[in-house]
Amino acid sequence: MSLLIKNGRVITATDDYQADILVEGEQIVAIGKDLPADNAQVIDATGLLVMPGGIDPHVHLDMPFMGTFSSDTHETGTRAALHGGTTTVIDFVLQQQGHSLQEALDEWNSRAAGTAVGDYSFHMAVTDFNAATKAEIRTMIVQEGITSFKTFMAYKGALMIDDRQMTGLMQEVKQQGGMVTVHATNGDVIDYLVAKHLAEGRTSPLYHYLSQPEVTEAEAAARFTDLAHYTGCPAYIVHLTCEGALNAVRNATRRNQRVYVETCIQYLTLDASKYDLGFESAKWVMSPPLREVKDQETLWAGINQGLVNIVATDHCPFMWQQKLMGKDNFSKIPNGHPAIENRMELLFSEGVVKNRITLNKYVEVACTNPAKIFGMFPRKGTIAIGSDADIILFDPHQQHIISAATHHMNVDYSAYEGWEVTGKVKTVILRGKVAVDNGECLLPSGYGQFIRRNQVSAKI
Amino acid sequence: MSLLIKNGRVITATDDYQADILVEGEQIVAIGKDLPADNAQVIDATGLLVMPGGIDPHVHLDMPFMGTFSSDTHETGTRAALHGGTTTVIDFVLQQQGHSLQEALDEWNSRAAGTAVGDYSFHMAVTDFNAATKAEIRTMIVQEGITSFKTFMAYKGALMIDDRQMTGLMQEVKQQGGMVTVHATNGDVIDYLVAKHLAEGRTSPLYHYLSQPEVTEAEAAARFTDLAHYTGCPAYIVHLTCEGALNAVRNATRRNQRVYVETCIQYLTLDASKYDLGFESAKWVMSPPLREVKDQETLWAGINQGLVNIVATDHCPFMWQQKLMGKDNFSKIPNGHPAIENRMELLFSEGVVKNRITLNKYVEVACTNPAKIFGMFPRKGTIAIGSDADIILFDPHQQHIISAATHHMNVDYSAYEGWEVTGKVKTVILRGKVAVDNGECLLPSGYGQFIRRNQVSAKI
Amino acid sequence: MSLLIKNGRVITATDDYQADILVEGEQIVAIGKDLPADNAQVIDATGLLVMPGGIDPHVHLDMPFMGTFSSDTHETGTRAALHGGTTTVIDFVLQQQGHSLQEALDEWNSRAAGTAVGDYSFHMAVTDFNAATKAEIRTMIVQEGITSFKTFMAYKGALMIDDRQMTGLMQEVKQQGGMVTVHATNGDVIDYLVAKHLAEGRTSPLYHYLSQPEVTEAEAAARFTDLAHYTGCPAYIVHLTCEGALNAVRNATRRNQRVYVETCIQYLTLDASKYDLGFESAKWVMSPPLREVKDQETLWAGINQGLVNIVATDHCPFMWQQKLMGKDNFSKIPNGHPAIENRMELLFSEGVVKNRITLNKYVEVACTNPAKIFGMFPRKGTIAIGSDADIILFDPHQQHIISAATHHMNVDYSAYEGWEVTGKVKTVILRGKVAVDNGECLLPSGYGQFIRRNQVSAKI
Amino acid sequence: MSLLIKNGRVITATDDYQADILVEGEQIVAIGKDLPADNAQVIDATGLLVMPGGIDPHVHLDMPFMGTFSSDTHETGTRAALHGGTTTVIDFVLQQQGHSLQEALDEWNSRAAGTAVGDYSFHMAVTDFNAATKAEIRTMIVQEGITSFKTFMAYKGALMIDDRQMTGLMQEVKQQGGMVTVHATNGDVIDYLVAKHLAEGRTSPLYHYLSQPEVTEAEAAARFTDLAHYTGCPAYIVHLTCEGALNAVRNATRRNQRVYVETCIQYLTLDASKYDLGFESAKWVMSPPLREVKDQETLWAGINQGLVNIVATDHCPFMWQQKLMGKDNFSKIPNGHPAIENRMELLFSEGVVKNRITLNKYVEVACTNPAKIFGMFPRKGTIAIGSDADIILFDPHQQHIISAATHHMNVDYSAYEGWEVTGKVKTVILRGKVAVDNGECLLPSGYGQFIRRNQVSAKI
Repeated sequence: MSLLIKNGRVITATDDYQADILVEGEQIVAIGKDLPADNAQVIDATGLLVMPGGIDPHVHLDMPFMGTFSSDTHETGTRAALHGGTTTVIDFVLQQQGHSLQEALDEWNSRAAGTAVGDYSFHMAVTDFNAATKAEIRTMIVQEGITSFKTFMAYKGALMIDDRQMTGLMQEVKQQGGMVTVHATNGDVIDYLVAKHLAEGRTSPLYHYLSQPEVTEAEAAARFTDLAHYTGCPAYIVHLTCEGALNAVRNATRRNQRVYVETCIQYLTLDASKYDLGFESAKWVMSPPLREVKDQETLWAGINQGLVNIVATDHCPFMWQQKLMGKDNFSKIPNGHPAIENRMELLFSEGVVKNRITLNKYVEVACTNPAKIFGMFPRKGTIAIGSDADIILFDPHQQHIISAATHHMNVDYSAYEGWEVTGKVKTVILRGKVAVDNGECLLPSGYGQFIRRNQVSAKI
Repeated sequence: MSLLIKNGRVITATDDYQADILVEGEQIVAIGKDLPADNAQVIDATGLLVMPGGIDPHVHLDMPFMGTFSSDTHETGTRAALHGGTTTVIDFVLQQQGHSLQEALDEWNSRAAGTAVGDYSFHMAVTDFNAATKAEIRTMIVQEGITSFKTFMAYKGALMIDDRQMTGLMQEVKQQGGMVTVHATNGDVIDYLVAKHLAEGRTSPLYHYLSQPEVTEAEAAARFTDLAHYTGCPAYIVHLTCEGALNAVRNATRRNQRVYVETCIQYLTLDASKYDLGFESAKWVMSPPLREVKDQETLWAGINQGLVNIVATDHCPFMWQQKLMGKDNFSKIPNGHPAIENRMELLFSEGVVKNRITLNKYVEVACTNPAKIFGMFPRKGTIAIGSDADIILFDPHQQHIISAATHHMNVDYSAYEGWEVTGKVKTVILRGKVAVDNGECLLPSGYGQFIRRNQVSAKI
Repeated sequence: MSLLIKNGRVITATDDYQADILVEGEQIVAIGKDLPADNAQVIDATGLLVMPGGIDPHVHLDMPFMGTFSSDTHETGTRAALHGGTTTVIDFVLQQQGHSLQEALDEWNSRAAGTAVGDYSFHMAVTDFNAATKAEIRTMIVQEGITSFKTFMAYKGALMIDDRQMTGLMQEVKQQGGMVTVHATNGDVIDYLVAKHLAEGRTSPLYHYLSQPEVTEAEAAARFTDLAHYTGCPAYIVHLTCEGALNAVRNATRRNQRVYVETCIQYLTLDASKYDLGFESAKWVMSPPLREVKDQETLWAGINQGLVNIVATDHCPFMWQQKLMGKDNFSKIPNGHPAIENRMELLFSEGVVKNRITLNKYVEVACTNPAKIFGMFPRKGTIAIGSDADIILFDPHQQHIISAATHHMNVDYSAYEGWEVTGKVKTVILRGKVAVDNGECLLPSGYGQFIRRNQVSAKI
Repeated sequence: MSLLIKNGRVITATDDYQADILVEGEQIVAIGKDLPADNAQVIDATGLLVMPGGIDPHVHLDMPFMGTFSSDTHETGTRAALHGGTTTVIDFVLQQQGHSLQEALDEWNSRAAGTAVGDYSFHMAVTDFNAATKAEIRTMIVQEGITSFKTFMAYKGALMIDDRQMTGLMQEVKQQGGMVTVHATNGDVIDYLVAKHLAEGRTSPLYHYLSQPEVTEAEAAARFTDLAHYTGCPAYIVHLTCEGALNAVRNATRRNQRVYVETCIQYLTLDASKYDLGFESAKWVMSPPLREVKDQETLWAGINQGLVNIVATDHCPFMWQQKLMGKDNFSKIPNGHPAIENRMELLFSEGVVKNRITLNKYVEVACTNPAKIFGMFPRKGTIAIGSDADIILFDPHQQHIISAATHHMNVDYSAYEGWEVTGKVKTVILRGKVAVDNGECLLPSGYGQFIRRNQVSAKI
């Protein structure tokens, strides 16, 4: 079966042109002027942008965390992602300390396989690096197609590895052709501040924010960057939020180093004034917390400077009832917020419409770079001959309002309630199938495939 | 008439796929698997890379300089460029101090129009900024399609403008939607060192090099970057050669600034040891001079960091007889070297083959960014539907040797004589016509068109 | 004749102790507990600080500038200095372009000799560096004891030298054992902004300020520092006012460079809000202009970091009538403000009393470093055996108010009118003579001596 | 009893003059020209420098470490220090994890009191910061006169505290008016490298060096500096060795921060080539290890830039037999080297004689700054009325050779064997008593006093 997308304005990370796109089976097979329809199903894209499906490389679905689970499963999460124009996500498998990577992978596989609607892959979070784990790194890369290894410099006793483990992990991952990614914040300092604030009776969400000052992230970003330089391991900082941390990366350019940087849509669009709303602020309790307006400016600039490579979400939703676990103690509020469905539209509205980034840059940071950096390119992340037909049709002018009343994520509030957005995902195609059209998901659970990833490269 | 390029591996700044490309008239109209030949002329690209024609945004053709003219005319220069896979060049119109921009443009037009074989555009070099020049800026942009204004911080009394003129020019160019580019070296310090060396009887080409130490470029790059920040004018540094100057740009990222950076193929591949060869070193007398190995490393890193955006040539050839003008006085050696024909193959061989940059990055810095930054995109600089069919077929494995005996530039020596290169331009297509095939140029003089340029943007 | 200062608390750049000081003739000969009075005149310093006389290395007395003369002569200026606790000043001889250094020195000598009340020396401002000037550098150092050479990067056509002259001067001065000092601001950019503002009808003092933005000083400080590094010449930046400029010096520390830095009392205590007062703002029209609160903070920090070495005044007073020359055109307002008498008390009150600097640091930056850096140590700048008995007795607790009604400078307004100061100079001794006591100057005109200076060192 | 030192050239951190010094009892009471001898014992200092006794703020005497004890006791160590011109040392009390600060202090007191020949004080090394320790901080400062608190970012399980404890300690110490000092190296990374090298069978002293690369120190120095900035606690980095770490301090100056820096004589004079000598290299196994020539240059520059404040020793000697504990495993070699006796002469010879620092700077970094920064000033660290008569008479021209055969430290090798030194300590006076004369120590064990220290200040 084939599909012909007519008269759209095609945008890739590089290009911008009017053409028709012909899809056969799961792949794109032709792009051109006035392609004949033959037997293909025709979709009229007149007046629409035709772009690669978004890739969100930082989501947490059905994740056990802080005594509960994030409220989107692989099914509801990837379906919501599709509604928002994101066709592939990368979820995090979390090794349990004292257990193997494989055990964790098996568990995650059991949850995702057969349920996901959209395509997905996994990062492996290494929370306990030892001789046994070391031996699994190669297996993960070669046999499982999992080439990126997430580390936490925070959450001591649960997820954190120390710098000794970090150095060892980096050396092994480099050897095997993978990449180390990091949640870069100084967990010890945060633990101190959390305990101090609680001891002083300061229990509201505001103190979540005040327990993670910029220095905790800036310091850790610099330390991680130093270790990556020493070991030579390809390196990537997830959810970088602030000027201090980006400056660590900028400093590293002087020694001819490159570290990849991801920020998230919330750090570009929201700021710490959200922590001034009493317990409602719990909606934005995430780590790192929202920062200042000056940090937003440095992140937008960093995108244009080529130093911030990806805009993700760190989607990790919790129901309001779950957030209430921390009503009397901010440190019990499950960390995370829902954004998997909002990223593509928000970034378009705040970035492209407001002229902060070009259309090409939009595709680059939301679709192409995630595919390239994480080894899914050219199958994913672009519109090109032979690539998977993961395509979105996007109306750049349509205005709408974000609301929990209309979103598809399994969470009962929106972090962007009432936000007026310009630009709307109209139709989403995943591997040649119309996945979403006019707000309706047409794909069944289990359509989503696990995407094995290739070895990463230090260059894109 | 149409052309069908079959079975090539298509590379753009983003993509990499196997496909056929169909050209109708001057444009690309379809890209796809197994496109039907119909009546098209078929070119078999099996085993070849199919890439956008190169764009060299920094060449000096038939340029009056130091009492002589650079030895390539617009005809010989653009023809040699085509042989080397470069389909479009941007030449520099030089205002004469005391005269108008328009006078200079008329003169350059009279030399280039009807003679150029390949496509070309112009930068306008502003050497005398005053009330009259100020009024011409808008004319150049709106009427002439010349949107970039070159400045010299050196060559006092001939080309140099001082910081007062620079500031005024920046404010006007910003206002009118253009960009200021700069030869960033401290001309006063260089003049001092030249005079000092000559007074001491140090007349060999080595002293050309020693008269332009890194500090002269680093300082000027920082100063220019500061003024661009103050005025907010889109800014571009031509032929940046060294760590000190790139660090100025890196420092500026901390204040959320972006300045575009061009380096040239020679600064990536040659070093100052060339100045140790007695008068033969005159072959590489250019400004800035060749630098050190550490500077090459910083430039390659800068490309991958996204901070160096373009690789050009500053092609400005002189016959050996012309170089001999400075036999007894290095300051009389016409500055410049021939490279317009060598850039694409050298960059491929030294960059891609040696794994310093990816294939996509290669196209980005050699083809796409010049088009984007200088307002010729999407007509030029990519392979996409509706773009000019400026295409090269490139054998990535063929080895050959650079030599004046075989090159097509109008100069009797090669700066890269004997260099073993991996990768060869096989066929070149310009606006749908086969321009070069198997080493033969098939286009007549005058085929080359002047390319009007759009207003630049501070973002790509 | 001898003098015994009893029971004071003696403060030097290092020490802090209770002792008596015995002076014989012009020098200090003994310091100790309970020294016998013998025939000495006894001065009771109980409850007072006993410190070295201040040295102000940046004053302009009787200086021809902008078509008039600064209103303090060497007589009135050094007398006012004594009242304020400053026993030695360094004035600037200004070479006239097209004339020799010696001519200028002769002229300045003719004005100062026989009239100065306090001791003085000269910097030589080189405004025209050529073969003839070059030959005079050695003469100035060896024969005249003038070892510091001031340059201006602004005031084109009057005082400014370009970077060519700067480089040549630095090489010669280094060779001869001197030091180059600089007024570091980008004169060309300032000239542009002044002309632009005037053309737009913006003529008030506020536009003096807006014509010299921080970038003009930061850029020039970096450029000067770069050239000093290249030439290896001992270097000193006068009246540094802002974060951007100090950061240039900080950056230079990374390449193991040291550049001396002077700020002035007004940049530590006043800010640009003074330019919001209509034409009254003319009182503070000086170059560089007053800056922001964040710059004050960086300057205080710089003192404690050891990177800002001296606090001077750039004393250059003009009568209100003279300031009125620029009533309709800020660029005609004579630049400068009166401070020679206020520096020591203001720095004490704002620095020591407010706990921003220690007492030792106070003496270091106001007395000792000027003597050391400019080759007058150990004769001047400290309290030690064999040093000139230039001593002030200072009441650290006495509060008083600065006013033109009571000051001794020959100028009819005070830049600090109404300022409440804690700490007062009670008695001043110059070369063993009581110069000022209880507000009365006891020394005749002509008592002041010219102080020959030794070769500078790059280290203190 | 009184002492008169005649005709010496007195050098302080500021001054340089010829004078006699009169001592009554333990203090200096007069300084002057031709002081009368009266009944005083006269010491002729003609041709000699008269300087304050040295203060070495970083020594480890009789210290339990790595299963043994450093070989100099408080008696032998302070006696050797006196021979080398150092009259006061600050030793480190090491809290044992799980025990109180007081217990450790009691133990150290029991070893030092009644045995030390020279004066001494203590730093308190906090190796376990908890609620109990927190309560002791004030006691230490107020009751014990111990105002500086040492931390280790290395030696996990024995001495290291994590960043959580560090932050808490800094907040408490700041509150109580003390200072936190740090051994800044990333212990986790070092532990990893040590284990890796040993696992690979790399057991020689060279691998001690290779297990502590520059990055481990640079990273930790930056992290500590960041935390000090966040908490506002006065901070001091001990034995800083390298460019990377000093650059962390330089970077911090940009945010108006000051962190005190100590380096040690070995890092200024020795380099890593010492690790190329087989097991003999064990003589220089210390942490951090010796670095490169470029690091020496940055340290000398840092002294002159005012960013490196103190030159100490980290004296921690072990007999060769003790060093042999690590014959088959570099990690078992007791860390440390003997230098307490050599510091003053080596620094003079390498610093002053070779014109890298001035005489005043010599006194500043070896005598005065240790006293000021650690709260012993003005009692110690200078030559001034009322200060302790801790004085050395120093022949600046006498040449001699360092050797274990002649030194007085209780260790059977010299780290500087055969080193030709210019400048020799001739006579040492401690609190008015001749302590060493012509190579003989005249003071009995137990003469040395514990020096209580005042609250530190963030400013000197």
